[in-house]
Amino acid sequence: MNDMPPDHALRGNVFSEHCPSREVLKHVTGRWGVLLLVALGDGTQRFGELRRRVGGISEKMLAQTLVWLEQDGFVQRIVHSAAPPRVEYRLTPLGQEISAKLRDLADWIEENLGAMLSAQRQSAGRVMPGEAS
Amino acid sequence: MNDMPPDHALRGNVFSEHCPSREVLKHVTGRWGVLLLVALGDGTQRFGELRRRVGGISEKMLAQTLVWLEQDGFVQRIVHSAAPPRVEYRLTPLGQEISAKLRDLADWIEENLGAMLSAQRQSAGRVMPGEAS
Repeated sequence: MNDMPPDHALRGNVFSEHCPSREVLKHVTGRWGVLLLVALGDGTQRFGELRRRVGGISEKMLAQTLVWLEQDGFVQRIVHSAAPPRVEYRLTPLGQEISAKLRDLADWIEENLGAMLSAQRQSAGRVMPGEAS
Repeated sequence: MNDMPPDHALRGNVFSEHCPSREVLKHVTGRWGVLLLVALGDGTQRFGELRRRVGGISEKMLAQTLVWLEQDGFVQRIVHSAAPPRVEYRLTPLGQEISAKLRDLADWIEENLGAMLSAQRQSAGRVMPGEAS
């Protein structure tokens, strides 16, 4: 995937409904897309390893998400000839870049979870300002 | 929201199926969550302004996503007394932090869209290595 000619003239706009960047945003920010890209940041892995790593993902969603990520140029599927053939998945250089950004995001969420849970608890017992008047 | 007591002892694990960080991940990485948090990074906005900014979002999804983001402690809903009451949405300090990370992600996707579209075109015309043998 290293030899893809990037089209430097093109820039997407995620706020535009019909921009193709929206589809990429959907793939990489779907819950499974984020988790798979972060997991693959740790190195090449097999299907079964990814399935165990990403708690709760079904075989079907794992397979579908890997296809999307491969089509977007983030993941490379490597088939080693053996009987049965051994298949592995690894990040492309493009995938490594986005994986690092998503890792950063996931780290932030994990580290700040306490603040979010506090907010959720406060919210559950709160009357909205507008509703009180 | 500034006075929330963060629970520093707590750290989430997004790979764990039952960790509450998964729910936050769902809210902030849903397509609309990302776009709203990025849009609000530009400043306080009203419902109608957000609706126009985020192409393709329905009123229902905008309202639902704002509720989630408010419950997670990312967005504050401000009601100004007037007739009719004027309602605005703005990021909390926590929301500003995550908004910056998502802006970085959205920028990267917009800037690298050309490479992804090239990958998608190549993928459409390619026989998978495993399928060729």
